[in-house]
Amino acid sequence: MVERRIPVKVEEAVHKVMEYIKHGDVEEVLLKEACGRYLGESIIATHPVPPFDRSPYDGFAIRAEDSKYATRENPVSFKVVETIGAGKVASAPLQPFHAVRIMTGAQMPEGADAVVMIELTQSYVEEQQTFMSIKRSFEAGDNISFKGEDVQKGEVLVEKGTKINPGTVALLATFGYSQLQVIQKPRIGVFATGTELLSVNQELEPGKIRNSNAPMVCAQIEQSGGIAIDLGILEDDFEKCYRAVGEAINSVDFLITTGGVSVGDFDFLPAIYEKLGATVLFNKVGMRPGSVTTVAELDGKLLFGLSGNPSACYVGFELFTYPIIKSFLHSKKPHHSVVKATLGSDFLKANPFTRFVRTSIEYTKEGFVVNPARLDKSNVVSSLAFTNGLTILPGGTKGFQKGQQVDVLLTKDTN
Amino acid sequence: MVERRIPVKVEEAVHKVMEYIKHGDVEEVLLKEACGRYLGESIIATHPVPPFDRSPYDGFAIRAEDSKYATRENPVSFKVVETIGAGKVASAPLQPFHAVRIMTGAQMPEGADAVVMIELTQSYVEEQQTFMSIKRSFEAGDNISFKGEDVQKGEVLVEKGTKINPGTVALLATFGYSQLQVIQKPRIGVFATGTELLSVNQELEPGKIRNSNAPMVCAQIEQSGGIAIDLGILEDDFEKCYRAVGEAINSVDFLITTGGVSVGDFDFLPAIYEKLGATVLFNKVGMRPGSVTTVAELDGKLLFGLSGNPSACYVGFELFTYPIIKSFLHSKKPHHSVVKATLGSDFLKANPFTRFVRTSIEYTKEGFVVNPARLDKSNVVSSLAFTNGLTILPGGTKGFQKGQQVDVLLTKDTN
Repeated sequence: MVERRIPVKVEEAVHKVMEYIKHGDVEEVLLKEACGRYLGESIIATHPVPPFDRSPYDGFAIRAEDSKYATRENPVSFKVVETIGAGKVASAPLQPFHAVRIMTGAQMPEGADAVVMIELTQSYVEEQQTFMSIKRSFEAGDNISFKGEDVQKGEVLVEKGTKINPGTVALLATFGYSQLQVIQKPRIGVFATGTELLSVNQELEPGKIRNSNAPMVCAQIEQSGGIAIDLGILEDDFEKCYRAVGEAINSVDFLITTGGVSVGDFDFLPAIYEKLGATVLFNKVGMRPGSVTTVAELDGKLLFGLSGNPSACYVGFELFTYPIIKSFLHSKKPHHSVVKATLGSDFLKANPFTRFVRTSIEYTKEGFVVNPARLDKSNVVSSLAFTNGLTILPGGTKGFQKGQQVDVLLTKDTN
Repeated sequence: MVERRIPVKVEEAVHKVMEYIKHGDVEEVLLKEACGRYLGESIIATHPVPPFDRSPYDGFAIRAEDSKYATRENPVSFKVVETIGAGKVASAPLQPFHAVRIMTGAQMPEGADAVVMIELTQSYVEEQQTFMSIKRSFEAGDNISFKGEDVQKGEVLVEKGTKINPGTVALLATFGYSQLQVIQKPRIGVFATGTELLSVNQELEPGKIRNSNAPMVCAQIEQSGGIAIDLGILEDDFEKCYRAVGEAINSVDFLITTGGVSVGDFDFLPAIYEKLGATVLFNKVGMRPGSVTTVAELDGKLLFGLSGNPSACYVGFELFTYPIIKSFLHSKKPHHSVVKATLGSDFLKANPFTRFVRTSIEYTKEGFVVNPARLDKSNVVSSLAFTNGLTILPGGTKGFQKGQQVDVLLTKDTN
């Protein structure tokens, strides 16, 4: 007698998993290791930006009041007393009708309150002294980047839980975060189960195939921001699997198994979950592929029983494990984005259940265009290599035609 | 007298840089290190997939001819001689009216040519021997995944130069690529120039700011697939800069400097390029920010003179250095994607030159929506932390209003 399982809807399954979100602790890293990690502390401006009044141009710093009567007919001359590049400070406060030649980014000399761009000046030398003259007046404050005009000291600039990108790195550097708190990566164990499985470096044998799920899932984990711990292959032996799973749980934040979750004679995961005392959140999802995806919980720790079928395994990870990893990292947007796209080719299969079609999605000027990634047979591993999204075809539909709009779950950037 | 430079158009500048594309060599890595790298060899199917005829279901393997006369009224019985799970091989060829209980993924027994799903059978035991009966006939080939039906041996599945994603990893594992050729990462040196620059771990001093460009550019390099070599800070001293740049060139594939490319008194890069005998491809680009971006070439090696202004530096990297890195990695799509997006807020500045506005882009079901990332002042470093795209506002325009369609260069995935 085949066991009858009641399928839950995809949204409900996701919801059940998300009830067991666990947030990671923080750890300290060097700035140069921080890109791609998630902020474990908010970035606070440790000083104003700019940190001092500075010149945004190459020009001359003057006292605006000295320029008051400057006109085309009656230019006003200034004695150029020194030149300061960025990083240098004027040696003395500015005197009336003196000017400091100042470069972009240099601090305004004391007493100066305007900058005249070089193009608006005429320089000349008299008795080995350089002068410059201007033909119009300037207001106090003209052409100055004022201290704090961009950022005030103490401002919270980026919040904890934000993914660090190169721009964030620039900000961290600006404010002296040579070390910083980031969220620890979750440690996720991966077992591939199945007597048919060989290691990648083994020669093929009759009836056997190489283990492709564990390497794939490990790559998915790393790509999502977790640490993958490849725990190897388990043959279909209840006792061995039970012991291995039971032991592994203690050393990881989450545990993934692939295979063994269906209702075949050697699908032992359901019985293992039962013997471990784990609560099964669901063991059948109304979707293709991956209907046998099972998630259980033991002492608040999630056990992801992904299908042994490579495509189903991929989909199960992206729908259920990915948002748990992102939540662990304190991401405020733990789920993959869903976008509208135009179907680039027919997909005429009927869908009694929601179907997640492995998809190669392209960004074009006309919007997203998707093409189901090669064959849609759930055992075709090759299509996964071109997958950067999953086209969501709702259950109860009869097929879709080229040109129709569909929802697509983006699983990866396209570069 | 201020030097007059002739601006080139952005497209022309990109084109000039792309004339100096250099393709990287290959190196060998372990499969578990391969994700995110670029294939240095095409993936070729080392065996057919499936590698043998196998059952796609839990069921019974039979000889179809034995089922020929099976009807609802006259079921045909089969002696169940053994059970094979995936990874096991039947012990003997199948005899007439014998059946092998077979699990998903298991190899078809010799002599069997159809699989009957468990749901369509009735099992019973007589004298300690299990039998099963069926009520309809099956054709030879029913419910078999045939050897090679997905992939033929020798097929080229993924080409050299493709970025390796988790699906590619699955494919590599399937075909036994425990080690593989990937493209070497380009080694890119980064100098930050400017007397105003402090290291990230230094306390602020009058007139000085911390070096944020080099950490940012290093992060951009790593994110793009290169190896960043942070060569430190150079003060604005011609001789020191000249020597440092001249020496560094020999140990890197490309060299980036930030700052020193404008026309100020201490902008020494133009003179350094000249003294080195480098050919300047351009030293002014018709764009904002980053108009002073300069790219030179010495013995076929590119020297990127990015602006010292953080936003201009960011833009210069993404437009000119990024595609060179991707080309080095043999990517067939070296440039960032450009998409249409809806402006989420007004941007009313006139654009005499093409403007690249730092942008926070969101994927929504209605398409892309962009919001200029906080202030658009070229010295506002904080906006960079929220930048994942650059909105392209063409030159000669007077400003854009909320709701208008604009082009956006995507600089990063959104997760």
